Order: sequence, then C-alpha cells, then structure tokens
Amino acid sequence: MVGNQVNGARIILVIEYDGTNYHGSQLQNNARTVQGEIEKALKMLTGETIRIKTASRTDSGVHARGQVVSFGTNAVLPLKSFIDGLNHYLPHDVAVKEAFETPEPFDVIRRAVSREYRYYILNDRTRSPIRQGFAWRVTGNLDIEAMNQACRALIGRHDFASFVSSAETARRKRTVRDVFEAEITQDGDMIIFRMVANAFLPHQVRNTVGSLVKVGQGKMTADEFRNMIDARTPGLAGPTAPAEGLCLIRVNYPGPFEGDAQ
Amino acid sequence: MVGNQVNGARIILVIEYDGTNYHGSQLQNNARTVQGEIEKALKMLTGETIRIKTASRTDSGVHARGQVVSFGTNAVLPLKSFIDGLNHYLPHDVAVKEAFETPEPFDVIRRAVSREYRYYILNDRTRSPIRQGFAWRVTGNLDIEAMNQACRALIGRHDFASFVSSAETARRKRTVRDVFEAEITQDGDMIIFRMVANAFLPHQVRNTVGSLVKVGQGKMTADEFRNMIDARTPGLAGPTAPAEGLCLIRVNYPGPFEGDAQ
Repeated sequence: MVGNQVNGARIILVIEYDGTNYHGSQLQNNARTVQGEIEKALKMLTGETIRIKTASRTDSGVHARGQVVSFGTNAVLPLKSFIDGLNHYLPHDVAVKEAFETPEPFDVIRRAVSREYRYYILNDRTRSPIRQGFAWRVTGNLDIEAMNQACRALIGRHDFASFVSSAETARRKRTVRDVFEAEITQDGDMIIFRMVANAFLPHQVRNTVGSLVKVGQGKMTADEFRNMIDARTPGLAGPTAPAEGLCLIRVNYPGPFEGDAQ
Repeated sequence: MVGNQVNGARIILVIEYDGTNYHGSQLQNNARTVQGEIEKALKMLTGETIRIKTASRTDSGVHARGQVVSFGTNAVLPLKSFIDGLNHYLPHDVAVKEAFETPEPFDVIRRAVSREYRYYILNDRTRSPIRQGFAWRVTGNLDIEAMNQACRALIGRHDFASFVSSAETARRKRTVRDVFEAEITQDGDMIIFRMVANAFLPHQVRNTVGSLVKVGQGKMTADEFRNMIDARTPGLAGPTAPAEGLCLIRVNYPGPFEGDAQ
C-alpha cells in the first residue's frame, strides 16, 4: 500500500497487453500477472515498491487495448519518462500507451462511467496462423441478423444474474448492470461483438458470447435469449467463450483526467 | 522432382502463414522455410517425397494470407483430407485454407495474372503488444494525402529498376512490371499500403514503402517520388521497410482452378 500513501505525484497509465501468457490482470502469488509486471517495472524505474489499482479486472488470457491503472509515487519524472521508462523495463507483451498526472486522488475504478469490451469470433473452417490467439474460431454458418436481434435485448438496465457462472457469484455481487451498447458487426470472416456497460460481472461478456453463438447457430431464438435474461438464474447463459477472443478496448471517464496527456 | 512426375492428382493449396519464424517461403538447407514445412507435412500425410511449387516467393519474416502452392501426388484422398490432414501435421504458424484439384497441369506461377500485397504501418508513438509482429511502427505525423499522390505514380506499366536494391538484380531480371492498384488507406493508427501488380521484383513492396514513408514525412515530394521511378537506377528507392509489415494477401488467376473447392 506504499504507493497510495505517498504525497508525491498521482499517475494514471493507459496500458495495452497481449494477455496470452498472463494469469489475468490482478496480482497473484507465483503467477505471472499484468499487475505484477507493471509493479516490477515501476520498482526498476522509481526504486519504490508501488501498488497499482486496475480499472477493469481481466481474466487469464484476456487482452487489453486500453486498460487503465493508477498509482502514487514520490519519483519526480516527466510523464513522458513514465511511458518510455516503463516500456523499457516491461516485457514485450505489455506496453504503456499514455500517461496522465492528476492533482487530486482519482479512483480509476469508481470514476469510470463505462467499459468497452470487444469479442472476436473468427468464422472460418480452418485455423488461422495470423489471427490465432486473438479470436475464437467458430465453424459453420452464423446468423448475424438473429445475433443482433438478441443483442438488442441486452441494452438497458437489467439484472444479469443469468450471465454469471455460479450462484455463489450471484450471491456475492449485485447483478444489475447498465448496458449502453451491444452489437455484432462483420468484417470478412471476423465477427466482432462490442459491448459497453457501466461495469461487468465476472465472465459476463464470455457467457454472453457463448449464448449469442447459440443464437447464430439456430440453437436458440432471440426470444429465448431475452427470456434467459429475464430468468435471472446463475449458470443459464453460456457456454463461456474462450478468453483469447476477448479484449478490453477502453475505460471511459466523464472528462479528461485533471492533467496533461503525453 | 518426384511430385511433378506422378500420374495421379494435381493439387493446388491456398496457404496462410505467420512468417515470423521462417527464412522465407522457398526451400533452403539448414533453415526453417514454409516450403520445407509443407513438404514435411505432405510426406507425413502421403508417404511420398513431394516437391511443391510456390506462386509468389516471400522473404524471411514476410507473412501470407493467401499464398498458393501446387504439387502432384499419387495419394488418393478427398480434397478435404488434404486440408485437415496437412493442418494436423503442419506447425501452428502455417495452415492450409483451401484445396483444389486440377485435371490438367496448372502452373501456379505463370498462370497467375496478379499478386496482391499489403504493407501495414503502425503510426504510433509507443510499441503495441497486440499488433507487434505484423506491422512496421513509424512514429511522427505522416501525410496520407501526399503518400496517396505518390502512389498514383506507381500505377501502370513502368520500369521499376529504381526499386531493386542492387544493380546485379536489375541485370538478372526484366524490371518492367504492370501495377494495377496502389493506394494507402487508414484505419485508426494503422496505415495500410495495398499494391496489386502482375508480378513483383525482389524487395519491391518494401522499398516502395520505405520511399512512401519518406513522402509521408515530408522528406520527399510526390514529384520527386515520380522522378525516382523515371530514373530507373537500382538502389534509389528505400530504405527497405522491415519484413514484418508485409503480407501476401492473394494470388489471382483468370478463372477458377478446373476443380472443386473444399
């Protein structure tokens, strides 16, 4: 907790990572995590033991284009040096893309108004050496129109209890979420599911994708998808789509961080 | 040459590969090549020693979405088994996407009417863990309009001697090529150069990209780019952009192969 007690600078970083070789975003003992790598790089750069806070927790194998983390430090460095210095120490599969300084404490979790995730489905009969690792390959025809019809049922304030994997999770968490956007687009053989919500339940996007693919395959109708939401029964949605297709695109805040971007 | 002498089936495959860990498409002693891996997989699948022919030679580190190869075989197998069987034996970074059978000999090199390459430039100040390996990262502003103006000078029949790296290469080869399309498009921070020509000289796309980036950076005008083409002087274009940004998208034939796609 050293990092949160300093009187020095409060720094916010936008981070990109290939999650393939990570046990998720959050610190764990004896496992390689994004948080662990960033804290190690911060130690190298500043000499301080710094604990970072992460805006949107990602699971093992999930990627991020625009994860947001924050920390406090007594290091006196231009923002540009946080970017280039950390990128020097970070492994090739994690990078700092932007840095901001905030004059006041800024809670990157609570101040976030929404998170955007995308899930990539490669609709191809054979494996793809170029796209592997960043998409779930699903063979056979998918009815994009039906999938989009199901997506519309997601939009708005709903109790998403059906989209958590276990009753235990549903008991521990409030399961109501505000979904602002949910849509499927297609770019050649790549099908992209985009979902923006105030916050997400564990495995929510991946369980949503598992059910949407069922709709695309004609195994579930858009109406049955809507009924599944209304049922508010943990474990109903799914199967959980693989982690590798999921990417945290960005975390949205009401205004700019109170500082200058570099 | 065993493969070309058989009286059995003549097979054409469309191949995708991540070229990062290959010393190019063409067979070499003591080096991992795409041809070497495909011939090894063919040996596993058919028991035969087969020599394949490759439609568009790619250099070390260059990728392909739609390379085309052909071979003859006495193996009696449905086309689907050439796809799935070879994909079983091939390493994860090479895959067969389609298979065709031709009743008559079909020269995949000479019958090709054009090749399409794309070169990916990531215009970003910091490295990208998600896109690395498939793009050349160039920092600083690039004038896309000026680059596109230069592209227009490429279209048509020209002597592209200025785009080969050495006088030796220019002596060995006819350097006139027909360029059907050349354009720059932008998708966020990714700049994509697309070029379609009847055939390409060694390093032609990468030397073209090196010069186009100079135009984008204001170090060369579109007129100077045009004069460089007209000069027909080996070594004038460049620098040679890195291999990792280049991808062979497809090889075009006048009609369908005389066989059924799988």
